[in-house]
Amino acid sequence: MYLPRHFEEARPEVLQHIMRAHPFATLVTQSANGPVVNHLPFMWVPEGGPHGMLRGHVARANPLWQDTLPGSEAIAVFQAADHYISPNWYPGKASDPRVVPTWNYALVHAHGPLRVIQDKASLHALVTVLTDTHEGGRVAPWKVSDAPADYLDKMLGAIVGLEIPITRLVGKVKASQNRSAADRAGVARGLAAETSAAASAMAQWVPIENRSAD
Amino acid sequence: MYLPRHFEEARPEVLQHIMRAHPFATLVTQSANGPVVNHLPFMWVPEGGPHGMLRGHVARANPLWQDTLPGSEAIAVFQAADHYISPNWYPGKASDPRVVPTWNYALVHAHGPLRVIQDKASLHALVTVLTDTHEGGRVAPWKVSDAPADYLDKMLGAIVGLEIPITRLVGKVKASQNRSAADRAGVARGLAAETSAAASAMAQWVPIENRSAD
Repeated sequence: MYLPRHFEEARPEVLQHIMRAHPFATLVTQSANGPVVNHLPFMWVPEGGPHGMLRGHVARANPLWQDTLPGSEAIAVFQAADHYISPNWYPGKASDPRVVPTWNYALVHAHGPLRVIQDKASLHALVTVLTDTHEGGRVAPWKVSDAPADYLDKMLGAIVGLEIPITRLVGKVKASQNRSAADRAGVARGLAAETSAAASAMAQWVPIENRSAD
Repeated sequence: MYLPRHFEEARPEVLQHIMRAHPFATLVTQSANGPVVNHLPFMWVPEGGPHGMLRGHVARANPLWQDTLPGSEAIAVFQAADHYISPNWYPGKASDPRVVPTWNYALVHAHGPLRVIQDKASLHALVTVLTDTHEGGRVAPWKVSDAPADYLDKMLGAIVGLEIPITRLVGKVKASQNRSAADRAGVARGLAAETSAAASAMAQWVPIENRSAD
């Protein structure tokens, strides 16, 4: 990923937040026929790799876990927000019309080797912690133990677990850091005025020192 | 991408809608060092390839346009929606507890070779149509001609255009089609009750024949 220094986000707690808040990842793996792209939720855990580890699962029928080239690197992409940025949002445009549109976004690339988990005890532990994570905040959480044991055993046989010990964690937050404080405030206001969840999500990433700077 | 038949979305108008409504793509290209992942908005146009063509641009400083292996296939991913699906949303669970959580999503993979555009007349035309697309609905649209000509010329020198004639267009809409009508209605209700834009977006993809089926 092309990453100019002013858009690099290196704070581990921010990268971890993105992965946890936006767990549905785009997974890029390497096969003999070129890149393979799949989509699945991953859970980031602090242990298991230099930058933690990703844990998830796919259908056993998904060829990815057998087609991935041994020793190759997988890339999991977690995307927090994105939005079009209009040059009209820059107050600085009034005195200097040298502006163009751009697209802002905040995302994380987690790199590492892909490990496949097939033993049922590990898979049972994995789906339990994944379920508890996603059901945790609900009024009456569904639990893995709610499913009949024989059915659960069959379902565990129909998936394989995936683990990616993260050897490299790269964050790109393109949020108008290359603009003046006044223009950044204008971008945040412009995004807020869009009154869409996508725009509001992006607005939160724009660094604002002083909202009255313009 | 693993794609069971019941999750395949092949209607061209639906795939085109996803690409137009969610233009910010994850672009996977192939270099001598393996897959490369970048992020940029693409515009889908009906002409230029068997399934139309994608047009966009990146910074000239982005190595992707020089590193991509000649003859290799690029994959652009457009994502419309995704959300966790709780088994508690299935009314059928009351009589049959054989249910597990899943994750629903709707997205498109556009495959094709990557072409690089460097001549400034083409780039000027490209940024003009991209700008007009994204500024079109605004009260006072910014126009490319608002920027000083010498500045614009410099900016066009700092980008390269990318075109992907689409040779294969794959849609995956995983939206509980493998559940009963009652369970699908329950999923739509469950998503609606989340009261988040992400959940509402996913709810729209769940096929509901009869909301009172349960």
